[in-house]
Amino acid sequence: MDRTRDLSRREFVTSAISTAAISCLPAQPLLARVTPQASAAASAHEPGPPLIQSPNWKNQGVENLANSPFAKLHDIPVRAVTVNSGLWGKRRETNVTRSIPTMHDLLEANGRMDNFRRLIGKSSAPQRGPVYSDSDVYKWTEAVGFALQSGDRPELRQTAEKIIADVVAAQEPSGYLNTYYQGDRTSLRMLPETQTTGHELYCMGHMLQGAIAYYRATGDRTMLDAGIRFVDDFLLPNYGPAPKKPIVSGHPEIEMSLIELYRITGDRRQLDLAGYILHGDERIQLPERRTIYMFCGTSFTERTKLEGHAVRAMYACCGATDYYLETGDPTYWKTLNTLWNDLTGTKMYITGGVGSRAQGEAFGDAYELPNFRAYGESCAAIGNMMWNWRMLAATGEAKFADVIERALYNGINSGMSLDGTMYCYRNPLGFDPSSGDKIRNPWYDTTCCPPNLERTFASLPGYFYSTSKDGIYVHLYNDSELNWHLEHGEPLKIVQKTNYPWDGRVELAVTPAAATDFTLYLRIPGWAQKVKAGVNGKSLEGMKPGEYFPIRRSWQAGDMVRLEMEMPVRVMQANPQVVADTSRVAVERGPLVYCLEELDQPAGTALSNIAVSVEQHPADEFRASYHGDLLGGVTVLQGKGASYDWGTRQDSLYSRFDTDPPKTKDVPLTFIPYYAWANRESAAMQVWNRLHRT
Amino acid sequence: MDRTRDLSRREFVTSAISTAAISCLPAQPLLARVTPQASAAASAHEPGPPLIQSPNWKNQGVENLANSPFAKLHDIPVRAVTVNSGLWGKRRETNVTRSIPTMHDLLEANGRMDNFRRLIGKSSAPQRGPVYSDSDVYKWTEAVGFALQSGDRPELRQTAEKIIADVVAAQEPSGYLNTYYQGDRTSLRMLPETQTTGHELYCMGHMLQGAIAYYRATGDRTMLDAGIRFVDDFLLPNYGPAPKKPIVSGHPEIEMSLIELYRITGDRRQLDLAGYILHGDERIQLPERRTIYMFCGTSFTERTKLEGHAVRAMYACCGATDYYLETGDPTYWKTLNTLWNDLTGTKMYITGGVGSRAQGEAFGDAYELPNFRAYGESCAAIGNMMWNWRMLAATGEAKFADVIERALYNGINSGMSLDGTMYCYRNPLGFDPSSGDKIRNPWYDTTCCPPNLERTFASLPGYFYSTSKDGIYVHLYNDSELNWHLEHGEPLKIVQKTNYPWDGRVELAVTPAAATDFTLYLRIPGWAQKVKAGVNGKSLEGMKPGEYFPIRRSWQAGDMVRLEMEMPVRVMQANPQVVADTSRVAVERGPLVYCLEELDQPAGTALSNIAVSVEQHPADEFRASYHGDLLGGVTVLQGKGASYDWGTRQDSLYSRFDTDPPKTKDVPLTFIPYYAWANRESAAMQVWNRLHRT
Repeated sequence: MDRTRDLSRREFVTSAISTAAISCLPAQPLLARVTPQASAAASAHEPGPPLIQSPNWKNQGVENLANSPFAKLHDIPVRAVTVNSGLWGKRRETNVTRSIPTMHDLLEANGRMDNFRRLIGKSSAPQRGPVYSDSDVYKWTEAVGFALQSGDRPELRQTAEKIIADVVAAQEPSGYLNTYYQGDRTSLRMLPETQTTGHELYCMGHMLQGAIAYYRATGDRTMLDAGIRFVDDFLLPNYGPAPKKPIVSGHPEIEMSLIELYRITGDRRQLDLAGYILHGDERIQLPERRTIYMFCGTSFTERTKLEGHAVRAMYACCGATDYYLETGDPTYWKTLNTLWNDLTGTKMYITGGVGSRAQGEAFGDAYELPNFRAYGESCAAIGNMMWNWRMLAATGEAKFADVIERALYNGINSGMSLDGTMYCYRNPLGFDPSSGDKIRNPWYDTTCCPPNLERTFASLPGYFYSTSKDGIYVHLYNDSELNWHLEHGEPLKIVQKTNYPWDGRVELAVTPAAATDFTLYLRIPGWAQKVKAGVNGKSLEGMKPGEYFPIRRSWQAGDMVRLEMEMPVRVMQANPQVVADTSRVAVERGPLVYCLEELDQPAGTALSNIAVSVEQHPADEFRASYHGDLLGGVTVLQGKGASYDWGTRQDSLYSRFDTDPPKTKDVPLTFIPYYAWANRESAAMQVWNRLHRT
Repeated sequence: MDRTRDLSRREFVTSAISTAAISCLPAQPLLARVTPQASAAASAHEPGPPLIQSPNWKNQGVENLANSPFAKLHDIPVRAVTVNSGLWGKRRETNVTRSIPTMHDLLEANGRMDNFRRLIGKSSAPQRGPVYSDSDVYKWTEAVGFALQSGDRPELRQTAEKIIADVVAAQEPSGYLNTYYQGDRTSLRMLPETQTTGHELYCMGHMLQGAIAYYRATGDRTMLDAGIRFVDDFLLPNYGPAPKKPIVSGHPEIEMSLIELYRITGDRRQLDLAGYILHGDERIQLPERRTIYMFCGTSFTERTKLEGHAVRAMYACCGATDYYLETGDPTYWKTLNTLWNDLTGTKMYITGGVGSRAQGEAFGDAYELPNFRAYGESCAAIGNMMWNWRMLAATGEAKFADVIERALYNGINSGMSLDGTMYCYRNPLGFDPSSGDKIRNPWYDTTCCPPNLERTFASLPGYFYSTSKDGIYVHLYNDSELNWHLEHGEPLKIVQKTNYPWDGRVELAVTPAAATDFTLYLRIPGWAQKVKAGVNGKSLEGMKPGEYFPIRRSWQAGDMVRLEMEMPVRVMQANPQVVADTSRVAVERGPLVYCLEELDQPAGTALSNIAVSVEQHPADEFRASYHGDLLGGVTVLQGKGASYDWGTRQDSLYSRFDTDPPKTKDVPLTFIPYYAWANRESAAMQVWNRLHRT
């Protein structure tokens, strides 16, 4: 045990290959490894403890799938892609200059950091915040870690270093770390009930993710070593299959974190522990309602549908997919696909948001997708994106990237205000200000969503591309520059020039260091119906929506790929089983879902009486125009609508069926991207609007 | 204080008039009082302590409004109306022979009675059930009380007497009584937090209601005296405006109970305490979410809408209306009407059920009325009926009786299975068995609804009629016999012969002891469009739906009133703001809401693909037929429908708007009364079905 611990602490990266070689892992595909030398040479700034043994930190992406035997695609590092302009350039700049710093101040003001300082005698403040408050700090640290991967921000780094120092100092010699269960509540620690509801392992999962992101930014192992101490000294020796003490996850999160840690350390015990947790331990029996709500307490592979707490379910699916990526266990793969079909076939909002019910922040039944009451927690949409990222890595199938894009541009993007200081916890698809709900807030006592949004935007460049054995996949389109290399080591630069998502034309300047044979996989989004593509002015054929279009050739500097996706307005209908959308339509353009906000409509127009006029060729009826000064710059859609005068049927809650149709009056309608709603004065909003057939 | 207590214990009824005379009550209308002698003479069976001072118990109705200055209508005793046949005769017989006895056994089996016996050394079982478990026993006792008002049931009475003996024995000398907060938890008693969430006063409110119903059945004051001890010895001396300790209601219920107690004792302090509680005490400040959820903690008269926990809100409205009936406070009346308009205009299901949200068992926003996810707790529908009964008493306006009928026949009636042993907690308006929900259950650990349904059905005869200064009001139609008297004392018998609710014809044989001038107010339900009425074969004119039709004449034995209300099938639409009912219709006939259960439709028909075909004259398209052997005897409706083949739009959750209408196939549809659903094998059910225009 000691030997392993030393290994994992000090030699983990260099030992990873040999550990894997003697483990019972399935045969690994032959993966070209970046040599430590190449990477170390590129590294100028390496603070923290010496990293002679692990120069690979700079090459690891959001996930380090380089050695994952069942990953078809492999992440590239966040730092390999520069995204400085376009929609995401602006969002990311706001994130790092406004959101992350102001969230730090709020976490401080609300005692989240003092919770750690109290334990090391640096604060006399009492414990504050809910049981899972440590995770807020960790998620914020992860956001900083991803932000620093895109370039040093000394002030942010110094702030984080101080926090990390306090976090690490609060860790007990046993390896245990949770400010809520140190001090007065020590006796409650890791009791079955505490494991179920106390979020101890959830917090440590986020600690590991924060530590890993920070390590991958800076090479600083301070926090990562503390995380490894928790896992290796506290968790592994004491918890696991009998005769060790049992674990129940309570709020899944530790699973994917343990596996990501394994991807650094190569310590198979960490992967096995994740598998043990995903399988569940019969010694802890939860009531059925808890196995549903908590998406744990029963074997993951026995699940047949998504239910219960949406974030828990999505994080469990992330962990299970990570487990599949390492083990190839077919029962996991079967379950994951069953759940994915359940999600995208019956339980996902058109925004990519998931979790219909406020009660239990939970999935509803199939087709239960209310709009005004939609919960659609920002964290759940993020979990959806994270899960699909892993499914995409396993398969290279574009249907998963379609879900990522849908969630990212809409149900996640809506979660942060344009100025980066207000956050949605819920992301409803309809809003009536008379409900009194405050949808955007700077702070929540359960502040899971704000730092989750921040880490997501900070990590975004890592989602633009993946490499595969035979080439490179382009997943996302935005002005950007890739500087990386193919898996056989050839350096590669790709510069994207585009006005996406406002325009469907993308130019990709593909520049390998030397002429090289490989395949460039261009993602053709599922929404794209009319697509042209070409290389160096020569047209290509065979692009299919919802698939990657492979361009296999000998690439050389100066090659220019041109992708042209028409972006007509799309009038969308929901499956007829979705009661909330009966006789309603939504409007999309490109990757964006649009909505009506009442304040953009003619004075006196009530959204509740509005219908969207749709004729035979819906797309022709809308006019798209970019407004640089509106909502940070958005393309607005103008269409035709009808305002209904309901007459007497409006006077009572129930009345005899009236065979006379209501009177209607034509009104012009103005749609804005859903993500930009609630950034002005409070106003009614609807994504699904009544359909008016003309 | 002592003097008052003695009065309230031993002389309360005879002292009531003089107490009222010297109180600061507004001037009372001149009410004809039934003389004690007349009532005592009619009473053969009077168990329990001597009742020389209070022979009036037999004359008190569900509420005793005889001296309530702002009651226009006055309850008649439950025992004055015999309901032995028809829909309610059958339901009531099942209730008293099956439901009440089996609920007793379940309460015993689940330790609810042992909670009391433990405190008096008769049981060693630990405390069982949630904090409000005492109320289950009290509500059951109230059900027995009402049942015994319709005639002695020796076995039931003896069982109740034993339980009452244990309850009373568990009371502390201080007057305090709550099995959850005696013993180990004594120190928590009546702390502000306990008052807020501990249901102490809620339980005692139900204790008083149970005691009063039992007293009105038997004259037995054992439990009533214990209730008075709690109020007079424990509550009044210690709690109330400063310098006494503050009260917050937590779960409104005590308010209406204190006022009903006041109506027996005449002890104004009890009324004033109810007023104090309804007003709230600034010394206990609840967070806003709790004042919303608990419908207390702020002055009732500051409320502007119904929100929060539906049962709490309805019970608070009951208490506030009772307070108005005694005080005439115009600010209460204004608030009550505001809330009533909010309820019936925006928040009530067509079944009379209320409370849209499972989360917090709560009211939703205006027009938030989902069908499958409808909560519609049985208790809330009962609270709705109880509140409207009080509003009706204050005004004599039939709109309140319309709500009573709607709730009673539908959203309450659905709460108990036809065999009387299974109960709904939720009463949704749509059901998909694949959700796995069990809608009807014999027992809930929070078993508030089952005994609530039992007390409601047991008390039902008390809702058939009211008297007023100038005559008598007929509220409900069912085969029945009234034996009572007018307010000036003239004995009156009314025999109803009808097949209501299956048929709209009602014969009322009106038999005063001697020829007497008075007004018979016939309720013309709001749903009745074509109505004929006559006396002794002579037609009357001027009946209006939703109003009482006054027939003022000199009545004499042999007078026969005939009321003929046509009962066409009504196709109903919801207010267009109700998103869940967009392009959907419901079907009603008479007072009944109908639904489709999938098992009544042609094989292979899925309700989710079904639409109701509606032409210009909807009523003509349906055929009504009574089936005596189906569901305890129901009138079934047969109509035309269409089954939709959605084609490809069924294949995905979202798709491009399809301008081609789906293919349809004619199918015959069979509707059953909503209340009778889920009494056979589990099947899909829908009240609001898609509309198919032909």
